Amino acid sequence: MVDQILIKPVGYVRAGRTEPQDDAWDAVPSRIELDAARFGPEALAGLAGFSHVEVLFHFHGASEPVETGARHPRGNTAWPKVGIFAQRGKDRPNRVGATICRVLSVHGTTLEVAGLDAIDGTPVIDIKPVMRGFLPRGEVREPDWAGELMRQYW
Amino acid sequence: MVDQILIKPVGYVRAGRTEPQDDAWDAVPSRIELDAARFGPEALAGLAGFSHVEVLFHFHGASEPVETGARHPRGNTAWPKVGIFAQRGKDRPNRVGATICRVLSVHGTTLEVAGLDAIDGTPVIDIKPVMRGFLPRGEVREPDWAGELMRQYW
Repeated sequence: MVDQILIKPVGYVRAGRTEPQDDAWDAVPSRIELDAARFGPEALAGLAGFSHVEVLFHFHGASEPVETGARHPRGNTAWPKVGIFAQRGKDRPNRVGATICRVLSVHGTTLEVAGLDAIDGTPVIDIKPVMRGFLPRGEVREPDWAGELMRQYW
Repeated sequence: MVDQILIKPVGYVRAGRTEPQDDAWDAVPSRIELDAARFGPEALAGLAGFSHVEVLFHFHGASEPVETGARHPRGNTAWPKVGIFAQRGKDRPNRVGATICRVLSVHGTTLEVAGLDAIDGTPVIDIKPVMRGFLPRGEVREPDWAGELMRQYW
């Protein structure tokens, strides 16, 4: 059984926000710069044909310990205590984030996106095109707290 | 700058399919078993309140070299040659997969899902609840080949 996986960032986020914040991420323009030593423009060829990409990234520089059990999302006791795998907070095992963003432009090895909730310098693990066939099939149901938490997020 | 990230699987996939195949993944029931040495049932608490989860996993045991440039998806020359970051194939940098699945049940440290396109023994990197606020905002546009590729996938 594979017991560890070594990830090498494919690039880094360049963004206006340099410290994590909870909300208003849409106000932050950002771009992903691929590692030009390993990738050329052909790695992004055709990506402009998609409206959205999913970006996998590492919550680097986090100072809080990783949660492995349950907690109140954002420490808000008005919301139920739920498992770390039932929330999307950054202090999670492996500290990997996954966010769907809008593609703004592709130039050479730089991808400009809107709606990436990652700060400047964030290591990017992968970029995937959003295909309709990979979106949820069937109705999406979530607890009330999830909707409340997201109200000011973008 | 962070130049490598060490990932420790949080659990493993147990599934009926032991070899990768291109299509018909919905026919395969599967479950994720958390590493019981590190996680208890509280890590999954509240997850049953969500209809869907996103599972991040590692395409382990892959035998093909990683693509860093462009290629025809599935080697099909009827489809355009596009960059590895404009397709979702497994032979990609870091070999990380991300799939949205339906939650069937949660028992202890075991999560049963439908629609996980990962073979038996696959290391799981993360499990995230699917929140409506994290789905694509605005119309999802994709090239024709993406719809054709997904036609038999599930």
